[in-house]
Amino acid sequence: MSTDTDADARAQLIDLAEEFYEQFEGGDVPKMRIPTRTKSNIEYDEDKNVWVYGDRESTRTAKTISGAEKLLKATYTIDFLARQLDQDRSSTLRELYYLSESWDVDEAQFSSQDESNNLIEDLEIVSEVKREDFHMRPEESGAKVMGPLLLREQTNRGDREIHCQDDVGQGGYQIPNNPDTIEFLDNDAEFVLCVETGGMRDRLVENGFDDEHDALVVHLGGQPARATRRLTKRLHDELDLPVTVFTDGDPWSYRIFGSVSYGSIKSAHLSEYLATPEAQFIGVQPEDIVEYDLPTDPLSDSDVNALESELEDPRFQTDYWEEQIELQLEIDKKSEQQSLASYGLDFVTDTYLPERLDEMGVL
Amino acid sequence: MSTDTDADARAQLIDLAEEFYEQFEGGDVPKMRIPTRTKSNIEYDEDKNVWVYGDRESTRTAKTISGAEKLLKATYTIDFLARQLDQDRSSTLRELYYLSESWDVDEAQFSSQDESNNLIEDLEIVSEVKREDFHMRPEESGAKVMGPLLLREQTNRGDREIHCQDDVGQGGYQIPNNPDTIEFLDNDAEFVLCVETGGMRDRLVENGFDDEHDALVVHLGGQPARATRRLTKRLHDELDLPVTVFTDGDPWSYRIFGSVSYGSIKSAHLSEYLATPEAQFIGVQPEDIVEYDLPTDPLSDSDVNALESELEDPRFQTDYWEEQIELQLEIDKKSEQQSLASYGLDFVTDTYLPERLDEMGVL
Repeated sequence: MSTDTDADARAQLIDLAEEFYEQFEGGDVPKMRIPTRTKSNIEYDEDKNVWVYGDRESTRTAKTISGAEKLLKATYTIDFLARQLDQDRSSTLRELYYLSESWDVDEAQFSSQDESNNLIEDLEIVSEVKREDFHMRPEESGAKVMGPLLLREQTNRGDREIHCQDDVGQGGYQIPNNPDTIEFLDNDAEFVLCVETGGMRDRLVENGFDDEHDALVVHLGGQPARATRRLTKRLHDELDLPVTVFTDGDPWSYRIFGSVSYGSIKSAHLSEYLATPEAQFIGVQPEDIVEYDLPTDPLSDSDVNALESELEDPRFQTDYWEEQIELQLEIDKKSEQQSLASYGLDFVTDTYLPERLDEMGVL
Repeated sequence: MSTDTDADARAQLIDLAEEFYEQFEGGDVPKMRIPTRTKSNIEYDEDKNVWVYGDRESTRTAKTISGAEKLLKATYTIDFLARQLDQDRSSTLRELYYLSESWDVDEAQFSSQDESNNLIEDLEIVSEVKREDFHMRPEESGAKVMGPLLLREQTNRGDREIHCQDDVGQGGYQIPNNPDTIEFLDNDAEFVLCVETGGMRDRLVENGFDDEHDALVVHLGGQPARATRRLTKRLHDELDLPVTVFTDGDPWSYRIFGSVSYGSIKSAHLSEYLATPEAQFIGVQPEDIVEYDLPTDPLSDSDVNALESELEDPRFQTDYWEEQIELQLEIDKKSEQQSLASYGLDFVTDTYLPERLDEMGVL
């Protein structure tokens, strides 16, 4: 079954191909303009608090053989994607690369996976349709959710109504690759709690934290997959739920928070789909390391470098983050979220999180 | 709710502590004997086709201060685990390490995570109880299942009956950390198909392969977690289902097959819980690379080294594997499972897998 989103995505793609056609018809050499995707053309949007592309554009033109080949590949890919949407199929970036081997014109075939990956990103940017709406599935799986939420997921074998506590096992609800197939039906949730590690996610679920505090516990599993970030954003925007992020207390984990809240340079064109600028960081904060005298490890050289580069990162240029990062450099220590277990297995759910959520005005 | 397994595990642990007590009472210096866990004391059991420990043992004795501290730590850990089982709680290896900071005797506290991890492995080996039965949860999540299987999972908020097609979203059923909480109620499955990559798992599910061929599609997600291997073994042993493994065609993927079928050196004491020696390799075989003229990458130096060390590995010393590995070294190429898409998105489910399963006598 094709949806309205599918029809829109298809129309945007066909428009692109039509432009080439019209350029030919008008006697012009076909070309495609796209924002320059170098670091220097990515700006931090102070109003929206996310990364966006700047104004610089580059042009792909058929004036050169390599430019003409790029447009040919784009045309074949548009044709493939339009058929895929018609037939309600989907595929991965990797499959697209291999599939191009079956195309009848050698010059249209991709010579590397980087080339096909980049082309899909180009098409995302130019058409303003995200790749999931082209039915390009990410290879990386989304994570899982546990909490008082009833949803309907449209699968390719029919709709499924699933309650993310009553209808799932201890492992929770597995987020599908395209979470826009989900409709939120009902919920008793007060907030979203994104959790970095599997061990801590399991602790919260075992201790019934989701149940007691009406929390939607979303496992991030390290650097979160697109599907996980997208779902988190939708939970915030559509259900009006505060989003909080709970990670280890080290610079790499602050980047995980950053990717949930501000988006990433790599997906700057998707910030409005994937980033939740209102997300708040719970901890582990450097301040907590001191206050609770948590078990620590010393900072390594690469930790120190990462913290220093965060001080230069516009996403972290707030009083809060400057204070925390400078404190961490001073104490020269980091702590894992599970180090809270040094006060017993229930400390995190009985004391630490409720206190932090209260301070933050969430509970 | 504590189960019989919990009571057994607890009894085994108490027995260990009791031995120390009796040694003290008898005027002996307490000691604990464990199999030597070095590579030289691991043997390939030709009958069972898995790795097992050899006959060499080493002794932890309280004759030295460091030995006495090890036994003290073991005693505190046994006490913690026995309480945990009593209260039907669970924890991770990492939590155990941090939790030891709250113990009242400084000498009982662990000085590194390696130390606590090793102690738990020692206790697994000596007590012959696997760590999941001590309620020590792995940090790594199990993967997911899609197929005609109805199961009951005992969660800490009650039992859940879940059909792994009808009651789950596109992402499938999330395997819990301890799959021994699952009871198989009913199934129409003909075989188990373990799949390495998420992209291929999603392809099979989108194409309805599980439905059409009554397959239980188990996503491995690279090197499979303990929970995934345990569930696979139980599907084989209890439901009498053939287990097949579908990976990329390179030496690292053959190791993934090896860890499903023969176990690993690291978990030699758990082979009988985790390994499925009857598992069969579907592919991608080096033979397939030639026969189907699949898109390839050249072997890197580390690929060649890994293949050569597999030729020396007793697990791969069969005519089949020697032939395949030698062929791969000769053609000097490897292929990913998604390269089958060069014949179209349905080739893998319409042609490749049915042909291979027929050859293997599974379908």
